[in-house]
Amino acid sequence: MPNSLSPFFAPKGVAVIGASSNPNKLSFGIFRNLTQYGYQGNIYPINPNAKEVLGLPCYPDVSSIPGEVDLAVSAVAGSLTPDILEACGRRGIRAVIIISGGFREVGGQGVELEQRCLEIAARHGMRLIGPNCVGTMDLYSGLNTTFIYGVPDKGHIGFISQSGAICGGIVDYVRGKRVGFSNFASLGNEADVTETDVIEYLAEDPNTRVITAYVEAIRDGRRFIEVARRVSKIKPIVLLKAGKNEDGAKAISSHTGSIAGSIAAYQAAFAQSGVIEVSSVAELFDVALALDLQPLPQGNRTVILTNSGGPAALTSDSLGANGLNLTPLTDQTKASLRAWLNPSAQVSNPVDMLGGAEPPDYGRALGELLKDPNVDIVVPILVPQALIKPTDVAASLLEASKGTQKPMTCCFMGDDAVKEARNVLHSGGVPMYTFPETIGPVLAAMRRYALWKAKPVSMPTEQPGTAASRAKSILERSQGLAALGERETRPLLEAYGVQVAPGGFARTAEEAAKIAGDLGGPVVMKIASPDILHKSDAGGIRLNLYGKDEVETAFKEMVAKIRAGQPAARLEGVLVEKMAPKGVEVIVGMRRDASFGPLMMFGLGGIYVELFNDVAFRIAPVSADEALEMIGETRAGKLLMGFRGQPKADIQAIVACIQKLSQLAIENPGIEEIEINPLVVYPEGQGALALDARAILGGR
Amino acid sequence: MPNSLSPFFAPKGVAVIGASSNPNKLSFGIFRNLTQYGYQGNIYPINPNAKEVLGLPCYPDVSSIPGEVDLAVSAVAGSLTPDILEACGRRGIRAVIIISGGFREVGGQGVELEQRCLEIAARHGMRLIGPNCVGTMDLYSGLNTTFIYGVPDKGHIGFISQSGAICGGIVDYVRGKRVGFSNFASLGNEADVTETDVIEYLAEDPNTRVITAYVEAIRDGRRFIEVARRVSKIKPIVLLKAGKNEDGAKAISSHTGSIAGSIAAYQAAFAQSGVIEVSSVAELFDVALALDLQPLPQGNRTVILTNSGGPAALTSDSLGANGLNLTPLTDQTKASLRAWLNPSAQVSNPVDMLGGAEPPDYGRALGELLKDPNVDIVVPILVPQALIKPTDVAASLLEASKGTQKPMTCCFMGDDAVKEARNVLHSGGVPMYTFPETIGPVLAAMRRYALWKAKPVSMPTEQPGTAASRAKSILERSQGLAALGERETRPLLEAYGVQVAPGGFARTAEEAAKIAGDLGGPVVMKIASPDILHKSDAGGIRLNLYGKDEVETAFKEMVAKIRAGQPAARLEGVLVEKMAPKGVEVIVGMRRDASFGPLMMFGLGGIYVELFNDVAFRIAPVSADEALEMIGETRAGKLLMGFRGQPKADIQAIVACIQKLSQLAIENPGIEEIEINPLVVYPEGQGALALDARAILGGR
Repeated sequence: MPNSLSPFFAPKGVAVIGASSNPNKLSFGIFRNLTQYGYQGNIYPINPNAKEVLGLPCYPDVSSIPGEVDLAVSAVAGSLTPDILEACGRRGIRAVIIISGGFREVGGQGVELEQRCLEIAARHGMRLIGPNCVGTMDLYSGLNTTFIYGVPDKGHIGFISQSGAICGGIVDYVRGKRVGFSNFASLGNEADVTETDVIEYLAEDPNTRVITAYVEAIRDGRRFIEVARRVSKIKPIVLLKAGKNEDGAKAISSHTGSIAGSIAAYQAAFAQSGVIEVSSVAELFDVALALDLQPLPQGNRTVILTNSGGPAALTSDSLGANGLNLTPLTDQTKASLRAWLNPSAQVSNPVDMLGGAEPPDYGRALGELLKDPNVDIVVPILVPQALIKPTDVAASLLEASKGTQKPMTCCFMGDDAVKEARNVLHSGGVPMYTFPETIGPVLAAMRRYALWKAKPVSMPTEQPGTAASRAKSILERSQGLAALGERETRPLLEAYGVQVAPGGFARTAEEAAKIAGDLGGPVVMKIASPDILHKSDAGGIRLNLYGKDEVETAFKEMVAKIRAGQPAARLEGVLVEKMAPKGVEVIVGMRRDASFGPLMMFGLGGIYVELFNDVAFRIAPVSADEALEMIGETRAGKLLMGFRGQPKADIQAIVACIQKLSQLAIENPGIEEIEINPLVVYPEGQGALALDARAILGGR
Repeated sequence: MPNSLSPFFAPKGVAVIGASSNPNKLSFGIFRNLTQYGYQGNIYPINPNAKEVLGLPCYPDVSSIPGEVDLAVSAVAGSLTPDILEACGRRGIRAVIIISGGFREVGGQGVELEQRCLEIAARHGMRLIGPNCVGTMDLYSGLNTTFIYGVPDKGHIGFISQSGAICGGIVDYVRGKRVGFSNFASLGNEADVTETDVIEYLAEDPNTRVITAYVEAIRDGRRFIEVARRVSKIKPIVLLKAGKNEDGAKAISSHTGSIAGSIAAYQAAFAQSGVIEVSSVAELFDVALALDLQPLPQGNRTVILTNSGGPAALTSDSLGANGLNLTPLTDQTKASLRAWLNPSAQVSNPVDMLGGAEPPDYGRALGELLKDPNVDIVVPILVPQALIKPTDVAASLLEASKGTQKPMTCCFMGDDAVKEARNVLHSGGVPMYTFPETIGPVLAAMRRYALWKAKPVSMPTEQPGTAASRAKSILERSQGLAALGERETRPLLEAYGVQVAPGGFARTAEEAAKIAGDLGGPVVMKIASPDILHKSDAGGIRLNLYGKDEVETAFKEMVAKIRAGQPAARLEGVLVEKMAPKGVEVIVGMRRDASFGPLMMFGLGGIYVELFNDVAFRIAPVSADEALEMIGETRAGKLLMGFRGQPKADIQAIVACIQKLSQLAIENPGIEEIEINPLVVYPEGQGALALDARAILGGR
């Protein structure tokens, strides 16, 4: 089945609606680009007031187009778009790119206009890109529906952008650097075709090896995860997310009208679906280039080959900061190098051949380093020297690396002096960067992706011993409540098999004493009131109560104290629970994200969760492996694994708790937030206990 | 008094020793550069085997030079250098640049050779740059003693480098971008002239406004701090330090033979001396350019002016991540903008004029934003559009910003399309960057420097109540010991007025009971043994002992238990101390750095110091302000300031403790390391108590 997005990249014929001969109009720029880059299909300018545009005969409307046409590009005023779409639909056009703005992004009537366009497209079975976008390019079909000046070199990077303008800047930046692209798609408002649709298309596109994306907001987060998780096992997806902090998110929502959502949810989704998140525009293409051109590293043992110590030191810093190691070389490699290199040269890693190194030296040394079993990755560095041609060094490196399965990324410092060498290297399949600081992040991204590809798919498993129906009936009884205290949240947790401290709810001092008597040993008493958030501050917690008298007295004192301090608070009673032994306190929680659904959280408990912001997130459903990853991403994880003589904690109990809460969140969409704080974790094999919990209900 | 370094940058005449007409020799490159960039003094090729080089008459040796000469550049083999230096000295040459390698960096005889050169230079009162360097450039005198291809544009950035090779890469990178330099100095092995000497020289150089440096190792750290602290109040010092992690440090020490020292000490020194540390080569010159061209910001309230939302969102991310805020605009500014901008334009911050914005729109909007009292900094962004010339936008921005004291940094995305605009902007005094991600770090560096310049100089004050002589006699008694336990460290701390838990040392159970009786209340007992590092694990700590019997029993049990477990351990007795009330546990420590001297440390105590690596460093002597900064840099500081309902802790007591320990370290160079762990801090006004401490003695 042909992908419904194919006409956006390789159409059989294109109509440009509003095509104009006036070079001051954007539609002229579009038409010029369309005719300029080798597109072989028919091109039809549509303009009732013109005879021809750039030598091609003009048609008054799409219905009068004589030949095959399956794509229309519309650059006329937004308000005319519905009529144009109707006409396109009647003509049998399958895809329309709406360049014009004036739709959802301006609010008010623009929202309705966009809705009308969508309805018309749906009626005719047409797909839409845009509105408010700069169109598409395909370097293989030669299609170019943008008004951007110039095109990048032909290659294997596909680029999806939620910002149109950024595309122009990027094309200008990469042009002539042999950073090769397969196609470009600017998606604008994403009224119909979304970033996820294009990811699916590029996954199938034989010319695309690496998918890159600039993303501001993902509206259907769950579908994104599902698609990205599948595609990223076949091709890398490298993504730059804007709106990483409050100011950035504000900037996005003010210009697109979309809510950026929680960055924690995005980052969790990326981690779970193998998406390689980068932190800058430059890094987006630096990483994509390496993934396009080079094999993935089998490990992180890296060797530097250089003609200068300073850049090697900076590269070493960059490697170290990104989790890569300078590998020790074998004695054999060192001896081979020593045999012919300048006696002052350094044959341990970094291998410094000194300023006098000639082009053949680079190839010879590289050949020996690639043979070293301790080496996974090679980083040749060149600082241009007066007497050496960088292109010769590039050629020597290419020759020596032929057939190797070990990745290589070069750092050739400079600009003018290394331009040609860059073209030689890129054309030969080796990425070159200008500064040492680029190397670490690029290799780290390659390594992360290699690990992702090698990792078996981990599926969330149904948790045993859950009673969804019991949870549902509890929630039904709570209808109308905005929040649930510990009293109501405990049975919810129990329904999903989360262990809570033994105990029960008491309305009177006598009931409390009865529960305490049944529990035996010391108990803790906590007030149950929908009006008291911080029980401890209000005097609503008493610890270590022994026997009937102490319990009854504590009940009366607690009620009296709270009555005095907060006369308006509704006091329902108290929870009486067996005192739990000490352990490591952690938090397990869930907050429902508008785009991605239940966002699970794990972190160190107590005051430290906020002080150190030591938390990790994943989107539910969470598999056992993912829960383990969450724990491993935090410092709390280190503590729990048995840091500095601490006993190893019952990690499996936390993993189970995260998964149970994840399942609870999936099966009960009415719960907006839920938090176990603290979950007390005991030494390995001894489990974990939820000591307090609360939930917030939503309107769904 | 003329600076002794002047001849390196503006000599009255230059001799090139080993000058050659063979274009395959580096000495030819040097000679060609020397004659090519407008240097007006006399140039003398020295070569007994040549009549002339590049048309200039050759001399057999320096003694035969007829005219004025105060600088020699030597590119002959290292072993010939001593004779050359003798000849130069006799000829009255004041400064010599030794390009050749083969000295300290190769070890062995090279070290001696370098030492001989130094002695000869000292005897003749000559200054040396190098050996193993690429020389100097001065864009004002036209001097160029390097063999680097090309020169940067003339401007106000001075560059000092401990890597020669990197200079070539940098020159090639900045060339033709109107990133203006005043001079360049590659220092090689720094046998004589060091980075600190050149910083002092550049501080006086009228053509240098910003000092930049690439640094691998600083040998005299204390002098560096003293000089940098003074110079940075006059001119910014922007510095890139290589060797930030283990791999980087190893790379440095392998190629220079110098020990990079502790990166914590470097970073403390930079913080204390107003040095702006950057993290990459690109950032070094990005920051320097802005500091050269623009005024310093009076605050961090930033406004973005753009023709495209995506880059504005990315810039907002970069600002937010670097401590700058998107400022709200006044209603008046918004109304003025609204009056004439495209109705779909966004007039809140970021101000998005949309893709159709024309060059005059940029100037007009900028004018209004500069008038807004809420605005400290302006960031204009341009994504090139088909119909707009970036140079016109640049000109419009320059015109509108004339006379303003608010800094402006531009982001014009692209490469070819914005090249000319960059030249227009840089020539007009406004820095331009290609990517949004660059803006935040550049503005943050400017803001940090503005705060440093405005900050009053804080001098460490002598701590009251110290008894240095008492400490000295304690240390004399400890001679021969490698480490001091709590027993010996307590009196040292007391001699400097650090409050320790009341108590004393007991050899017998009876003595222990006597001390406990005198103290009253519950006591703690700790074993005193040079062989027991972890008292707690060995059973060497007992808490909460009441009364004579309990104390005597505890003494006997403790001794018996340890005798059984570690029969070889020397047991000196026990410390008996009054039980201290609970408080926040912190660590205050000192480790002596080979280059910078006593490195003071502050951090959160207990297991968390390692788990979160939540520590801050400064070089002693530490002023009260600096001690306060240390606390403020840690998360522990947040906790102590009264985080989440915690009582505010006695910060002043910690400040005093850090200063006392700082003074102790300065006055007692025999102490290699000392650590108070924990220092228990009580609520404000209630002081802090050192509960345990240890020290390591050095050989000095």
